[in-house]
Amino acid sequence: MHDLIENGTLWTLKEVGTDSEQIRQNETLFSLSNGHIGTRGSLEERHRTQAYSHSGSTLMNGFYDTEPITYGEWAYGYATHHQTTIPVPDAKKLDLSLDNELFDLETGKVDHHSRTLDLKRGLLTRTFTWENSKQQSIEVTIERFVSYDFPEILAQRIIIESEEDDLPVQLLFELDELEDMGKEESAEDDPDPRKKEQAERRFDSRPLSTDSGRMIHISTHASDLHAVIYDHVVSRFEQVSLERIENKVTASFQTDKSAPVVIDRFTAYSHKYNNEEDTDSQAENLKEIMSEVETLGYNELKDRHLSFMDKFWSVSDIELEGDQALQIGLRFNLFHLHQAAGRDGHTNISAKGLTGEGYEGHYFWDTEMYMFPFFLYTQPKIAKSLLMYRHSILPQARERARTMAIDKGALFAWRTINGEEASPYYPAGTAQIHINADIAHAVYEYGKVSEDEAFMFNEGLDILVETARFWLEWGHFDDERDGAFVLNDVTGPDEYTAIVNNNFYTNLMAKKNLSYAIEYAQKAQEQAAGKLEDLHVTEDELQNWKIAESRMFLPYDEEKELTMQDDSFFHKKVWDFEHTPEENYPLLLNYHPLTIYKHQVCKQADTVLAEFLFLDDFEMEQLKRDYDYYEKVTTHDSSLSRSVFGMMASQIGKHEKAYDYFMDTVLMDIIDLQSNTKDGVHAANMGGTWMSIVQGFAGMRFNDGTLYFTPHGPKEWSRLSFKVQVKDRLIQVTLTPSSTEYTLLEGEPIIIVESGEKIQL
Amino acid sequence: MHDLIENGTLWTLKEVGTDSEQIRQNETLFSLSNGHIGTRGSLEERHRTQAYSHSGSTLMNGFYDTEPITYGEWAYGYATHHQTTIPVPDAKKLDLSLDNELFDLETGKVDHHSRTLDLKRGLLTRTFTWENSKQQSIEVTIERFVSYDFPEILAQRIIIESEEDDLPVQLLFELDELEDMGKEESAEDDPDPRKKEQAERRFDSRPLSTDSGRMIHISTHASDLHAVIYDHVVSRFEQVSLERIENKVTASFQTDKSAPVVIDRFTAYSHKYNNEEDTDSQAENLKEIMSEVETLGYNELKDRHLSFMDKFWSVSDIELEGDQALQIGLRFNLFHLHQAAGRDGHTNISAKGLTGEGYEGHYFWDTEMYMFPFFLYTQPKIAKSLLMYRHSILPQARERARTMAIDKGALFAWRTINGEEASPYYPAGTAQIHINADIAHAVYEYGKVSEDEAFMFNEGLDILVETARFWLEWGHFDDERDGAFVLNDVTGPDEYTAIVNNNFYTNLMAKKNLSYAIEYAQKAQEQAAGKLEDLHVTEDELQNWKIAESRMFLPYDEEKELTMQDDSFFHKKVWDFEHTPEENYPLLLNYHPLTIYKHQVCKQADTVLAEFLFLDDFEMEQLKRDYDYYEKVTTHDSSLSRSVFGMMASQIGKHEKAYDYFMDTVLMDIIDLQSNTKDGVHAANMGGTWMSIVQGFAGMRFNDGTLYFTPHGPKEWSRLSFKVQVKDRLIQVTLTPSSTEYTLLEGEPIIIVESGEKIQL
Repeated sequence: MHDLIENGTLWTLKEVGTDSEQIRQNETLFSLSNGHIGTRGSLEERHRTQAYSHSGSTLMNGFYDTEPITYGEWAYGYATHHQTTIPVPDAKKLDLSLDNELFDLETGKVDHHSRTLDLKRGLLTRTFTWENSKQQSIEVTIERFVSYDFPEILAQRIIIESEEDDLPVQLLFELDELEDMGKEESAEDDPDPRKKEQAERRFDSRPLSTDSGRMIHISTHASDLHAVIYDHVVSRFEQVSLERIENKVTASFQTDKSAPVVIDRFTAYSHKYNNEEDTDSQAENLKEIMSEVETLGYNELKDRHLSFMDKFWSVSDIELEGDQALQIGLRFNLFHLHQAAGRDGHTNISAKGLTGEGYEGHYFWDTEMYMFPFFLYTQPKIAKSLLMYRHSILPQARERARTMAIDKGALFAWRTINGEEASPYYPAGTAQIHINADIAHAVYEYGKVSEDEAFMFNEGLDILVETARFWLEWGHFDDERDGAFVLNDVTGPDEYTAIVNNNFYTNLMAKKNLSYAIEYAQKAQEQAAGKLEDLHVTEDELQNWKIAESRMFLPYDEEKELTMQDDSFFHKKVWDFEHTPEENYPLLLNYHPLTIYKHQVCKQADTVLAEFLFLDDFEMEQLKRDYDYYEKVTTHDSSLSRSVFGMMASQIGKHEKAYDYFMDTVLMDIIDLQSNTKDGVHAANMGGTWMSIVQGFAGMRFNDGTLYFTPHGPKEWSRLSFKVQVKDRLIQVTLTPSSTEYTLLEGEPIIIVESGEKIQL
Repeated sequence: MHDLIENGTLWTLKEVGTDSEQIRQNETLFSLSNGHIGTRGSLEERHRTQAYSHSGSTLMNGFYDTEPITYGEWAYGYATHHQTTIPVPDAKKLDLSLDNELFDLETGKVDHHSRTLDLKRGLLTRTFTWENSKQQSIEVTIERFVSYDFPEILAQRIIIESEEDDLPVQLLFELDELEDMGKEESAEDDPDPRKKEQAERRFDSRPLSTDSGRMIHISTHASDLHAVIYDHVVSRFEQVSLERIENKVTASFQTDKSAPVVIDRFTAYSHKYNNEEDTDSQAENLKEIMSEVETLGYNELKDRHLSFMDKFWSVSDIELEGDQALQIGLRFNLFHLHQAAGRDGHTNISAKGLTGEGYEGHYFWDTEMYMFPFFLYTQPKIAKSLLMYRHSILPQARERARTMAIDKGALFAWRTINGEEASPYYPAGTAQIHINADIAHAVYEYGKVSEDEAFMFNEGLDILVETARFWLEWGHFDDERDGAFVLNDVTGPDEYTAIVNNNFYTNLMAKKNLSYAIEYAQKAQEQAAGKLEDLHVTEDELQNWKIAESRMFLPYDEEKELTMQDDSFFHKKVWDFEHTPEENYPLLLNYHPLTIYKHQVCKQADTVLAEFLFLDDFEMEQLKRDYDYYEKVTTHDSSLSRSVFGMMASQIGKHEKAYDYFMDTVLMDIIDLQSNTKDGVHAANMGGTWMSIVQGFAGMRFNDGTLYFTPHGPKEWSRLSFKVQVKDRLIQVTLTPSSTEYTLLEGEPIIIVESGEKIQL
């Protein structure tokens, strides 16, 4: 069992000792965020001991800089600018001195060092004792949390105790403006396209005047984004002398063996804004927030935070009895998912949440296809705000479609923050047009589960219509296939097979996208005709969607009785897995794209994902055959793969496989399965974990207004329990090896179906 | 008719007047080179009047610098470095002063300005009269040529006449070291991938000591290439006072109305070398050359040059009576082809020859498939040296194959100078693996025509074996096609259709490549068994080649009775040509690659090229159907396209079409058909011109040791005559609308076949 779990409880991960390798690695795992700001679990003195840190970044969701993308060879329509979430001034930096001797883990003697991430309460706590070279000793506790009630606020409390009186202690607080970015050695030489570390500071800063604390305005170099940051240190202890010197605050006092000394630090990060002229009002706003926070005080702020966390867990928790590691792993994943999600309708979920700079902080299809279900069924408000973000970037998506010579409709960017395409490699970027259908699918699912008609007949319809239009323009009716509707030159989810015709996943999702648009356009004809008119949806257009939907080509090999991942997949040579050494994985770092593309080898679930999403459309035998075939040629080099294979395994009766895959996914980041957790957690996989439990093992489906379950919980687990919110009901599902129990906790009576049998709740 | 032609003769292009636009444009056309050095047709005073110049570069074949390629997103196996032919110090720079007034076209009064490119003699001559502001007047003649006898030498003669005595004239000669690159305005902002202009000097220079003239050593910044340049001004006229001041030479004299004053300038460019320590010996060598040249004097040097040119034309000329423009256009093309070709076995032919910096001076398949036939049949020594270059880069090609996870054989770089892949866009770079077969095809053709067994059983066999091996590794036997041998994820010649399976051209060429290797390996078993052993060719391997060759998949649509460009070509939507505005061509500058790839639209001949190369393998009706189909979907956005369609048109009886295409190709650069002649001539198209005459209109084929002709000369031409060298014979072919005549000029008697009829020569 992993140390963090072994030392922890069912709700905590605990790191014990001062092993630099462990502390570095746990920096990602111990990140705290609230969807607006996130701060990595770095040591307060990391600037003194680089060996203990990969990167101590503090990030703001959607706060990015741009720079022109340089291509070896330019072509028309290429993405023009990198968008990169950038580290902002970090408020964790702290110099702790005892009798003028500066603390770090390599100075003096450190004992009982531990850090605990409390998932239940959303707290990171560090404690240790330190004896300096003069044999003076103090006990230090540092607690931090990122507030959900006040999304701007990072709160930190430092508690100093000693068994001696009158030891002179000084704390020096500084807002680290990253003049020295302290990037990892050799990061510049690492060409791994999945990460991109910042080599230099990407913002300018200037001080703003305040009565207390320190306030700065920052603005990015190229993207013209602005934010205000307000750092404030307080203590209610009389012996503490606070002094502000330029951009630093010192807290000095002498120890008192009768009582610990407590010092609090609050740092407020405004939301990003576009117009420098708004700086004054942003500053005023932060002052008000800070005043409120100071009035509340640390304890009350923390109490509210704990209540908020309680409320979150009361709905979103999954209880799993019988395997402590899985229980804690699950909670760890749900915790990170929850704190990753933008909640303001202008931000989304980065591939790494706010836990690292990997993938530049971009939003991908990961949100809709891997993380959205968790929010949809347990935190629907967040689900809606994620869709609102997509709606907010529709203008950019329309523009992108025009660039692709598509006259009608919209094409969402494959990877983006500001809505513009930021993928510099179109074969695994723009070619992944399935993103359009992925988003439409999430919209439709939201409509089904929430029954939020106001959204569906406005923002929802905008998205459904504009994405449906896109398919008609991209595809065509192929005379060579008796007029079937085909989609050529696309890349499906599997990025080891690029630029193909009729990717099954893409075509099926496009077909669904069209059917969603048709369904809501028809509903709107009765309920929101004005909206349809605004969108210029004509009867003719609707008719065209219907024809394309009904004629959508879905590649199938009659002889093999297998679904074809795309037109040519079976014509390729199967990858020589037997002679591929372990160290050559992931293949993308060791083989040229063409070498990979010309083989039957998948980075991730593709056809199996399509089938899992629409299980009821397929015969069980088909699902089994396809699973068996594609599993053999899939490397799972993408973190999005295992959870899908696991869920499908669960549905087709391969329970051991399901369990094995689940074991890998649930602990992926804790055990660093992908060897790159240092760059941030794998948020999509975390969503896959939730899906694995609810849609995999419990087999939950929501079709035509009815909730279905086909439970196959592993026999190793004595009890599995979770809650879902559907159509204003809150339902608790509890599975044991011998029983299932469904409890209606909130809302009107409802009939659900378990394995074909109706149950009235 | 174009001005240059109208003012010229059947052997000359003449520019009259001082229109800056014309002078700029003619800078490319008036380039002179000898395969080693090339210098653009810029005015001597271009540094004073930028409006009259695009770029006055002097280039050395194969003298390039490198810089790392920056990718928006890196992937394994990508080409790592740009290779860029760089301008070297230019020896044309001249400041001419009359009574201390500096000459340029905008100062004083210029009359009778003309420049004549004499194709027959390989000379560029400029004459004008200049009256300065003091009403003093001189007549100036400047002649330049690049020597074939002394490939290092650029020779220039300046002649000054006056009707007045004692006008003080000064000429200031400077070796322009390009401190100010004088690049075109806004070139930096032009993202056109087909050109890449140098923004800064890419070499360092230092003076070397000499007794006379000025000698410098230059070394590139990154590629570590070296060269020595020796610039020398002489005059046999006593009144001329030559003075050397630092890096300049002045020639001062007073006019003498009884006789013109003549000053000569010789500039020697050493061959490139890799080791700076060789500089002294290189310098010594240049001194010897210069001494020999000075002893000969300008007139004798020029006489030898004229003899050389005479000899060239005596074999390589095409006489065409009945259309002056075509005659001059043809000669212009042959002239440029001839001067473009590297002759030292270490250099090849850049896409733009040495006439401009377009395509970075890279060597492409253009050499083998478009230019090689001209050399093969009229200048076989050059043909051989071009193949020797390919042989010299086999080690890099083997290395490239390894990078592509190909364990045996070699993969030639798609674009290169030093043998390493320099294409930063693999879908239209590395994916064009047909380059391997293109080179093998040229080797085989050379063997057929030259009967040079020594080459074929050494360098030739190396290339045939290593390329054949590659196909076995890249492709596989596809069970889904009854075990046919398939080649997936390739790009054919048509760069508007990328990453496809079983491109017909590629597969057919690969099949031929295998058959060539089999044929020569079998011959070698008897005649050069040791060589086969050295190459580790086993009976098993040979057997595998035979199986792959015989099972090579050639995509064909039985229903349409059409050859398929690739497996999926007919499944794509035909490009909407009707609604594509003229200004949107070339499509590559106005549409995203995916937009282009997902349509039936071709940049250039692909299937038609394959069929043209092996005409006898196809039924006439098939050729016609394929031609008709592919012509409709081809934009000819590539300059390699029209000549092929023209030749095929000629063979299938579409004589008007053939004539129209020929008209476009023959005058492509003179009329600037592609709108980018300023970046250099289209050398491959020039080769296509020769092919159009000889293999198109005259229908020449050389199969199984016999020369075949099927002449269809346009009726507009009263006489067409050319010579070919085959198996040590020199044969003259003369066509008139009513007759054909074949004359054996050199060599043993031979039987040829015209339209099925044998003729004994």
